[in-house]
Amino acid sequence: ELGGFVEEIDNVKSEYVKCFEFDPKLMPFTWIVVRIDGCHFHKFSETHEFVKPNDERALKLMNFCAMAVLGEFQPDVVFAYGVSDEYSFIFKQSTNLYQRKASKIVSAIVSFFTSVYVMKWRDFFREKELKHPPSFDGRAVCYPSREILCDYLSWRQVDCHINNQYNSCFWKLVSLGKSKKEAQNSLKGAQLQKRLEELEIDYNSLPVMFRQGSSVFWNKEGKFLKHQENEESCESHRNVIVEHCDIIGPRFRLEHPGILDGK
Amino acid sequence: ELGGFVEEIDNVKSEYVKCFEFDPKLMPFTWIVVRIDGCHFHKFSETHEFVKPNDERALKLMNFCAMAVLGEFQPDVVFAYGVSDEYSFIFKQSTNLYQRKASKIVSAIVSFFTSVYVMKWRDFFREKELKHPPSFDGRAVCYPSREILCDYLSWRQVDCHINNQYNSCFWKLVSLGKSKKEAQNSLKGAQLQKRLEELEIDYNSLPVMFRQGSSVFWNKEGKFLKHQENEESCESHRNVIVEHCDIIGPRFRLEHPGILDGK
Amino acid sequence: ELGGFVEEIDNVKSEYVKCFEFDPKLMPFTWIVVRIDGCHFHKFSETHEFVKPNDERALKLMNFCAMAVLGEFQPDVVFAYGVSDEYSFIFKQSTNLYQRKASKIVSAIVSFFTSVYVMKWRDFFREKELKHPPSFDGRAVCYPSREILCDYLSWRQVDCHINNQYNSCFWKLVSLGKSKKEAQNSLKGAQLQKRLEELEIDYNSLPVMFRQGSSVFWNKEGKFLKHQENEESCESHRNVIVEHCDIIGPRFRLEHPGILDGK
Amino acid sequence: ELGGFVEEIDNVKSEYVKCFEFDPKLMPFTWIVVRIDGCHFHKFSETHEFVKPNDERALKLMNFCAMAVLGEFQPDVVFAYGVSDEYSFIFKQSTNLYQRKASKIVSAIVSFFTSVYVMKWRDFFREKELKHPPSFDGRAVCYPSREILCDYLSWRQVDCHINNQYNSCFWKLVSLGKSKKEAQNSLKGAQLQKRLEELEIDYNSLPVMFRQGSSVFWNKEGKFLKHQENEESCESHRNVIVEHCDIIGPRFRLEHPGILDGK
Repeated sequence: ELGGFVEEIDNVKSEYVKCFEFDPKLMPFTWIVVRIDGCHFHKFSETHEFVKPNDERALKLMNFCAMAVLGEFQPDVVFAYGVSDEYSFIFKQSTNLYQRKASKIVSAIVSFFTSVYVMKWRDFFREKELKHPPSFDGRAVCYPSREILCDYLSWRQVDCHINNQYNSCFWKLVSLGKSKKEAQNSLKGAQLQKRLEELEIDYNSLPVMFRQGSSVFWNKEGKFLKHQENEESCESHRNVIVEHCDIIGPRFRLEHPGILDGK
Repeated sequence: ELGGFVEEIDNVKSEYVKCFEFDPKLMPFTWIVVRIDGCHFHKFSETHEFVKPNDERALKLMNFCAMAVLGEFQPDVVFAYGVSDEYSFIFKQSTNLYQRKASKIVSAIVSFFTSVYVMKWRDFFREKELKHPPSFDGRAVCYPSREILCDYLSWRQVDCHINNQYNSCFWKLVSLGKSKKEAQNSLKGAQLQKRLEELEIDYNSLPVMFRQGSSVFWNKEGKFLKHQENEESCESHRNVIVEHCDIIGPRFRLEHPGILDGK
Repeated sequence: ELGGFVEEIDNVKSEYVKCFEFDPKLMPFTWIVVRIDGCHFHKFSETHEFVKPNDERALKLMNFCAMAVLGEFQPDVVFAYGVSDEYSFIFKQSTNLYQRKASKIVSAIVSFFTSVYVMKWRDFFREKELKHPPSFDGRAVCYPSREILCDYLSWRQVDCHINNQYNSCFWKLVSLGKSKKEAQNSLKGAQLQKRLEELEIDYNSLPVMFRQGSSVFWNKEGKFLKHQENEESCESHRNVIVEHCDIIGPRFRLEHPGILDGK
Repeated sequence: ELGGFVEEIDNVKSEYVKCFEFDPKLMPFTWIVVRIDGCHFHKFSETHEFVKPNDERALKLMNFCAMAVLGEFQPDVVFAYGVSDEYSFIFKQSTNLYQRKASKIVSAIVSFFTSVYVMKWRDFFREKELKHPPSFDGRAVCYPSREILCDYLSWRQVDCHINNQYNSCFWKLVSLGKSKKEAQNSLKGAQLQKRLEELEIDYNSLPVMFRQGSSVFWNKEGKFLKHQENEESCESHRNVIVEHCDIIGPRFRLEHPGILDGK
């Protein structure tokens, strides 16, 4: 029986199928952003009983994974910004990682992130077992200039802010006895600022991580690092830090020259 | 301070950055193949002391993950073929998963596969902890006809066969005291069939999984399934089976009409 | 002054800009169709007083150009179908013209077609000078199977039929004194078959070229050719013929095996 | 017979073929360059007895066509640079012509250029009839910054310079009785500057158009224009001018702010 198989093999002329492979390269000298998003995280967060509207453990696990990505893909990935179940990874403009092949870059980032997420789950959710496999999808986008890249980051942080205001109102309404449907209807087209006040939510006292998302980058300035819990064991990203700060205004770039200004 | 942030937000006009997003769709009515490969698995297999040339536990873990992919992405993924640290997933011709967007398809598959790999690691490597995160990269390729798709699968199975012959010789030489360098040189351009004989390797008695790789598909015929160990708990892919068979010759398609012949 | 220029040149390091060039290749083993369309032909046909709804001279000039394309790009272009100011060129499935680079194929076809159109204008419009330069745009589309390719051709011929019915009614109404606006409104959502009868247009007696468009292909059967006027001088496409026939039904493929059935 | 055709048409369901059409858009906010090249111009220039190494009539015809392109595609095309049988057209960074669809942009430019080339041929080659249709191919390339765009232009002008030095030597050798083969061999790897001297070619006295190519742009400064012969009749590009100048150094951009510095 195997004899037949072996003979067949000598007659196979199938190398030609390689000519169908085609992984387009991302435009040189542009800023590559890989953004990943949780797949079916609505269901995943319910199954694993995430605290609403923000689960600190889940966000810190996301941050840990992002820090690991900066460690693994150094010096190519220079900055990351995360909120909820999404994370954006910024590559330095001159990167030539995988010859800038789109599929390879996106899949390697998303796979590594996922791998760390599962491996480190129990460090952040001590009492909870993973009930089904969490996964993420990803995409690469190129931006031709630093200004547009910064507008991209602003867009994500504005989204964080608006979603967080909305979710704070929504879950407060639910906690007050409204059904999800009722809460949704009551917020349709609402002035969120006003509703926060009416619902007596002291928005500014919420943790800044919830309000401004998380920015991850290399601590090049050498300043003293308070290592986060769970982080100390990971050699490769020892100098990667997480901050929760305004990345829309000019201050961030002024205080951290070399992150988004370098090549 | 936050006041400034909130005011800024009202002035941000950054939605325009969305126009840079661009995820090309894979050609309709073609057969999509997503092939994933282990990243740095040479090192990963050394760190985790994989048996050489084939580690049964590692291969079975790969197979388990592939089965889970068929379960998760049903009815879109209809067949998978795996060897070593690579796996190819075949989508049915008419799939419209994620509107056939390339990045989304590749990243979702590779992330889910990775997630299962880490979650189930300990079921297959009972005595071994994961020392660093395993990851995979992926790519999508389209084939315009069933014939070319079958040639693709033949190409992978021929590769399995040749690599396995080579690796069997290589590791036998190493076990006989040669250095890796010497073993490599000694096999340069060699007639593998002949070397197997000289090295007294009874190739045909090696497990068929090593020689022919693993084919994963739905057991539509309803025949009785001996569930593999580790598999029983997974509801979603209860009827997905692994076989180690010749997929180059016509027999496989004849015995399993509807897998690669359906739409 | 030039000295400066020459010195500068020695210092220019600009070859790197080549890495931005990127001409994706059309998928191998698919059927390539290049469809060209007149740019601003509404205005062009008015300026040059085309007979409405169909100008025989203009159509014959289009056909001549298409024949020249088959002559110039033999054996790659095997069939063409034209109607109004558009023409579709079908490449044989196995073509490797310009390594299947999309821009190169489209631009070369559209430029050659345009060139012949201008050169031969006076042969078809004897009394009329070209008042401004006619031009065409083009695109390439790939079809993975012969069946879909034939559906593409059907789509174009159905379009020809419907547009011609509409235009016959429209211009009849205009000739009866309606303004273009009134004619348009009167035909909105109309049953064209019925309106043709009401307007006493003997549709079936219109020239078949108007009703079924023009099909251009190589006369491989060696049957006697009545050369069209204006055609005799062109050596390169001596055996290319134009027919006005039904290409939707099976008859065309049955009568001309080897055109759309070959590789 | 037609009855059958008409009945068929009602049954045709072929609109779905539209889903195969796919014209990728060029990245927003980048500089688009469309470069066109003569197809088979080696043969074309021989058939039409172009003067070697530079035919002034042919170059001026190319320039006229480029000027017409700027007139036709205003305000999108802002600059063009030509040498020999190639021309590069620069679009302003913010152009949204044809929604930046690559095939449409390339094919429309190349077709219009070709059309003018044929129409105006006799104005430049008074004694010569066109013997076969001239045609061009084209491609679009995007550059993410003005600096890289300027490097692109430098690259083309350096090419012009080197090719012109080479061709000047080559044709001098031929005029001295060498065969083309001998001339070619004698110039392999040669220091062109030195060979020009040895061959007593007074390179600097050659027309500047031969040495520096042709730059085409809008005369926004309103300075007095000496209209070139053949140009006066063309209303649409009355204020488009051709200059033969150094575009590598900073002077051009300094003297013409707003061409490559505007949006």
